[in-house]
Amino acid sequence: MRILIVGAGGAGDAIAKIVATRTFAEAVVLVDPDAARAERTLGWIADRHGADIAGRYTAAAVDPADPDAVTRVARANRVTHVVNAVEPRLVPSVFAGALAAGADYLDLTMSPSEPHPTEPHRLVGVKPGDDQFAQAGDWEASGRLALVGMAAQPGLSDVFARYAADHLFSQVDELGVRDGANLTVRDERGEPVPVPFLRLRSALDECLTPPVVWQREGGWSAAPPLGETEVFHFPAGIGAVECLPVEQGEVVLMPRRLDAQRVTVKRGLGRDLVGALRTLDALGLASQVPVRLSGAAGPVEVAPRAVVAAALPDPATIWPRVEGRTCAGLQVTGTGTDGAPRSTLLFHIADNAETMREFDSPCTVWQSALPAVVALELLATGAWTGVGVLGPEAFDALPFLELMARPTALGGYGQSWGTEDRPTVG
Amino acid sequence: MRILIVGAGGAGDAIAKIVATRTFAEAVVLVDPDAARAERTLGWIADRHGADIAGRYTAAAVDPADPDAVTRVARANRVTHVVNAVEPRLVPSVFAGALAAGADYLDLTMSPSEPHPTEPHRLVGVKPGDDQFAQAGDWEASGRLALVGMAAQPGLSDVFARYAADHLFSQVDELGVRDGANLTVRDERGEPVPVPFLRLRSALDECLTPPVVWQREGGWSAAPPLGETEVFHFPAGIGAVECLPVEQGEVVLMPRRLDAQRVTVKRGLGRDLVGALRTLDALGLASQVPVRLSGAAGPVEVAPRAVVAAALPDPATIWPRVEGRTCAGLQVTGTGTDGAPRSTLLFHIADNAETMREFDSPCTVWQSALPAVVALELLATGAWTGVGVLGPEAFDALPFLELMARPTALGGYGQSWGTEDRPTVG
Repeated sequence: MRILIVGAGGAGDAIAKIVATRTFAEAVVLVDPDAARAERTLGWIADRHGADIAGRYTAAAVDPADPDAVTRVARANRVTHVVNAVEPRLVPSVFAGALAAGADYLDLTMSPSEPHPTEPHRLVGVKPGDDQFAQAGDWEASGRLALVGMAAQPGLSDVFARYAADHLFSQVDELGVRDGANLTVRDERGEPVPVPFLRLRSALDECLTPPVVWQREGGWSAAPPLGETEVFHFPAGIGAVECLPVEQGEVVLMPRRLDAQRVTVKRGLGRDLVGALRTLDALGLASQVPVRLSGAAGPVEVAPRAVVAAALPDPATIWPRVEGRTCAGLQVTGTGTDGAPRSTLLFHIADNAETMREFDSPCTVWQSALPAVVALELLATGAWTGVGVLGPEAFDALPFLELMARPTALGGYGQSWGTEDRPTVG
Repeated sequence: MRILIVGAGGAGDAIAKIVATRTFAEAVVLVDPDAARAERTLGWIADRHGADIAGRYTAAAVDPADPDAVTRVARANRVTHVVNAVEPRLVPSVFAGALAAGADYLDLTMSPSEPHPTEPHRLVGVKPGDDQFAQAGDWEASGRLALVGMAAQPGLSDVFARYAADHLFSQVDELGVRDGANLTVRDERGEPVPVPFLRLRSALDECLTPPVVWQREGGWSAAPPLGETEVFHFPAGIGAVECLPVEQGEVVLMPRRLDAQRVTVKRGLGRDLVGALRTLDALGLASQVPVRLSGAAGPVEVAPRAVVAAALPDPATIWPRVEGRTCAGLQVTGTGTDGAPRSTLLFHIADNAETMREFDSPCTVWQSALPAVVALELLATGAWTGVGVLGPEAFDALPFLELMARPTALGGYGQSWGTEDRPTVG
């Protein structure tokens, strides 16, 4: 397998580093508009794993907004698989560039959604991945695979859903995607204090988009953002976290293959971050519409949301000091294979001290990158095969979960996952 | 009396309009850097009161930052009293311009404070009015009066304090300045909903300055801003409001003349506004230090606090729809003249529907302007006389409170004030 990773931000960096611990990649090209970012990752790999492994890697400056540039670098490096690790806005151009290059493709986030033009708080407009699934015929015709939404959420959550549907449940009522974390830093007295605003930037993007649910009766529907929260109890000592409904790829992916009454996605942000989002929204500070004000050198126009982001401390300076864990979970309710009511949480935990130590990567970012690499390895070994545009739920979950959990000494990723049965109501 | 009002913002506008209901002013000159603002006020007075009264008024463009310009316009109009209705930053230049013009002077807000350079959360630096009291000798030498801090808080609160010390208490423990409001607008269903953010701009300035208290033992001390809140119960249907400690002129003025153990000032903002301030502070959005970000036309530097202000809806568009009341109160605790423990709230209520209808002025602004005009009238009639730099607590409270409360039909302002005795502890 010869891999082109587009985007050397958090996810691309982590993917490159995890791939470096495996043997399935013959060559890896890591590209970014800022070549220095990609070179930094390669420098880390050389330091950690030595020249032999680093020798398989190259870095280059490529603009992901330019499909031809993506095609050129893929062809020049005889790339077999393009990994798209860019923000949603730039997904379509990399997707197009990969198809034109005749490569297989995998992304962590799907093509962007657009709110419904007239009733955004009730109806869905363009859903995540809609643009990609619309091109499935082209991918099928060229005999190539585009595996979309292959991060933790979506991604691992879809693998969990497929596993639950195949092996744990005879009938599924709700597929409930939930994530939550208990991240703290030590204050000057050495006491752990929460760092709720570490994920504020992404929360602004994720939580101010109208959340979407899928129901068998009626299909997809949207709701106003920042709606009612749910307190969800996470395992591994994380505990109760206040979760907000969000729009996320699973709501599109899961109903494509799996038989459920309902798909919901809620993101655990905690009370402080939810409160901050509500305040920013109420004050107009979440807005991306520029406001005009007088700057040092005359009137300027700035988007309040960009100012919020600029005023925050750089998360990169905080993550190395963060303690705690993040949980990617899927709560499945329905009827078990024994015919009894069943409610089971399937989950994976990433510990920040560990991901920072082993990969210099924040636990939330690293957890998103891991499933992409496991999937790449399954494609490399032929355990997973497919043609067209497919989500993770289209593939057998067993080899994925087995490879991910198998100890590293036995050739796996050593990343165990858990299930927790919960009381059922009624 | 010939009055120069410097500043045609909310307070200057309201003062000019209240003066127009009285007969003590022979001439009023209203000046502002933006002459159109002053002319708007004069237009309103002409519409409401007719050409005879409006004929006593003139408007002009004057820069309050230029003391010479203030002196020139005062001299040219043979002004006897300069009313300073500008923001604290511009107070000193108007103060200096008035002295040079040989006029008496009255302001609503005193010269600005500066935090302690090294220990701002424990020690006081420059206090409000310090610069003005330092010039008391010059005012005394010229035989002129500067009456400082003559709004509602400070101002009316100091009058209340003097009254309580003279007539209600034999010994005062605490002089506790408190304000609070219950402002709402109607939503689309006609239900009243709170408008907590109407006063966010001023709250950012007031509540992020370290609050100051005065105690007989130890004098003035500062504390970190956004400290512990107190829920205070306000009269006239306003009810319980969450109050934050603030720095305000009374803490300097009251101890100059009145015998108390302690002076505290807390501003009633309500839970939502206090929460918003805490969030903005935590996110760095209350900062006046510019952040750098990319704007539409290249990188720009903007102060987050200015962006917060710019993103808010213009309060002027909201006040006309606001219902509710604001209370300027002083809670005095100590020993009554009968020797028994006593706790009494002295208060004045302004109703927004009334101040908007009668003066096109928000209740909070109008309430600040009223005491300034009552004081001017007492100076015009000679009921109050003085020389040097003095606060309201230096004058007999009785004629003030009598004139303010006397019905308009009997020549007063028809603004009753109240007292409410409260249970004492111990």
